[in-house]
Amino acid sequence: MSEKSYEAIKYDLIISRLKSRGVEVEDIAKITLELQQQYLKDISLETCVEHVKRVLIKREVQNAVFTGIELDVLAEEGKLSEPLSTLLMEDYGLYGIDEILALSIVNVYGSIGLTNFGYVDKLKLGIIKDLDSKQDGVVRCNTFLDDLVGGIAAAAAGSIAHRFADTSKVLAAYKASK
Amino acid sequence: MSEKSYEAIKYDLIISRLKSRGVEVEDIAKITLELQQQYLKDISLETCVEHVKRVLIKREVQNAVFTGIELDVLAEEGKLSEPLSTLLMEDYGLYGIDEILALSIVNVYGSIGLTNFGYVDKLKLGIIKDLDSKQDGVVRCNTFLDDLVGGIAAAAAGSIAHRFADTSKVLAAYKASK
Amino acid sequence: MSEKSYEAIKYDLIISRLKSRGVEVEDIAKITLELQQQYLKDISLETCVEHVKRVLIKREVQNAVFTGIELDVLAEEGKLSEPLSTLLMEDYGLYGIDEILALSIVNVYGSIGLTNFGYVDKLKLGIIKDLDSKQDGVVRCNTFLDDLVGGIAAAAAGSIAHRFADTSKVLAAYKASK
Amino acid sequence: MSEKSYEAIKYDLIISRLKSRGVEVEDIAKITLELQQQYLKDISLETCVEHVKRVLIKREVQNAVFTGIELDVLAEEGKLSEPLSTLLMEDYGLYGIDEILALSIVNVYGSIGLTNFGYVDKLKLGIIKDLDSKQDGVVRCNTFLDDLVGGIAAAAAGSIAHRFADTSKVLAAYKASK
Repeated sequence: MSEKSYEAIKYDLIISRLKSRGVEVEDIAKITLELQQQYLKDISLETCVEHVKRVLIKREVQNAVFTGIELDVLAEEGKLSEPLSTLLMEDYGLYGIDEILALSIVNVYGSIGLTNFGYVDKLKLGIIKDLDSKQDGVVRCNTFLDDLVGGIAAAAAGSIAHRFADTSKVLAAYKASK
Repeated sequence: MSEKSYEAIKYDLIISRLKSRGVEVEDIAKITLELQQQYLKDISLETCVEHVKRVLIKREVQNAVFTGIELDVLAEEGKLSEPLSTLLMEDYGLYGIDEILALSIVNVYGSIGLTNFGYVDKLKLGIIKDLDSKQDGVVRCNTFLDDLVGGIAAAAAGSIAHRFADTSKVLAAYKASK
Repeated sequence: MSEKSYEAIKYDLIISRLKSRGVEVEDIAKITLELQQQYLKDISLETCVEHVKRVLIKREVQNAVFTGIELDVLAEEGKLSEPLSTLLMEDYGLYGIDEILALSIVNVYGSIGLTNFGYVDKLKLGIIKDLDSKQDGVVRCNTFLDDLVGGIAAAAAGSIAHRFADTSKVLAAYKASK
Repeated sequence: MSEKSYEAIKYDLIISRLKSRGVEVEDIAKITLELQQQYLKDISLETCVEHVKRVLIKREVQNAVFTGIELDVLAEEGKLSEPLSTLLMEDYGLYGIDEILALSIVNVYGSIGLTNFGYVDKLKLGIIKDLDSKQDGVVRCNTFLDDLVGGIAAAAAGSIAHRFADTSKVLAAYKASK
């Protein structure tokens, strides 16, 4: 009877962590779909799901997600010292470390994800809006999670852009070069 | 009789280069204004101009602008080899080096500018739309310039955000710490 | 009777946090001195201390330091969940988030700090060697701290390089430009 | 009769460009070998060559190399305007854009390459020393090339580190998680 591979264990774990914070792969893929639909009108949610999964098996992405979610949870549980506790519970706009972690995810598919990340983060597309909103009487901290989700969605969009790149205009230029 | 300082020479030069490509400090400041108005409703264009100028005296920003504009101009003049020439003249979406240069500008005021840059770049606010659009019969390349302008506007917005930060919510947390 | 300013409160706090983990401003400045001595042979430790302090008043630097030290401490206290706990306690080479946080510090003074950071981190200059070494029978985690210290030292070196830049070779070029 | 694929055309082109500037894949792989030998003592030059090649097929890496080499060549030919021409011909330490381009290469395999890049760049390992040295009576500019080579070597080292990662210490931690 074969054991589950290291890669499979890690993948299942990252999915389970995201789920424990209310985020499904499909939620992220929907943001990717919204980002790519203007460029590739026939793109399907299934394709977006597939590329989100590709992003989620990357080690650096997983480590960013583990770290960010851990900080969100510890903030909720009141286990962080000050001033970090307040910076996170208030989702303080000048904290900046949440964007830094997201950037490390976005970079995995190059600078192409960068623009998408900023756009997603500013407009709070899809589930990011829910993550970012406060609910009365609920102690909740998604300071890292909303940026992580945006970073993953943007990286997946970058992955798709590379995969379906229209090279027709530049192909001749490459052939003409030496 | 005193000579113009090194700093003043460099600043005048960067302003003159941007102007030669159709970009005034005010054009960039208007984008910054649009970015910051939702957070600081009383912010004036003058304040935005001042912060754009602060960004433009930074050495790394100047070097990115000199390099990017040089590449745009050489592309227009047909002096670049292939495939670079085509990548720039087509503003090829997967080129990526234009965003890399803009990112080096954005980073000057921390990760806060990052989100703004992506947003500006995607929505093509203000003069960026003009820079980005093609005109019939005109050989023009602004592949780097539109991203540089977006990067400067986003960095200036970051500078303003740091300057006018509302610290009331976090001040108590700092005082309580040791 | 005037109260301590917000800036002073934050600065004192960051110094106190570093001290609680065994790091003094002078320890960091010594690394900066080692980095810059080959370029500026008359540079003093005092100058290096002054530039390290300049780095430490930056908001983004402070937030990176608060976050990194918090994670180190929580790892030592066994308060992190798995696999993060083990990744940090083992200072796992492929974790990567420690370098990401340090990079956000280094970027504050531009790409110049980048090379210095890599060098410092690889050779484990000065106090970094002590932070990085294991002691028998002591449960200690400096996974973030050693990179943070390297990042601050490298950023201070970048700040010094900008301040004492030899512009003689390039000044004529700027004057000749328009 | 089958045509050469797009990927093959691009790969051959990047190899030919590097060769035209005096750099062979093996030269870069030797730096990677030096970087990784202390961690993996049985690593072969062949393995390093293979990972350098993997880095060189990445689109963003290719675009950085095309752009950097183009600027070096144009500087040599006296075709750049001032002050850019002097900044490049002098390999001015505060120019910074060469490191920015290299960083975009390094990021392809995550933050792990970062430390290696700084180390390689500072110690001028292998062919980087030759590229960086001036020769009497020869007009030559390798301001970008030496950093590009360092970035590729460091990224390849990162790729190897991910491939041959010792996961024994952390595997149990992942299995224990849920």
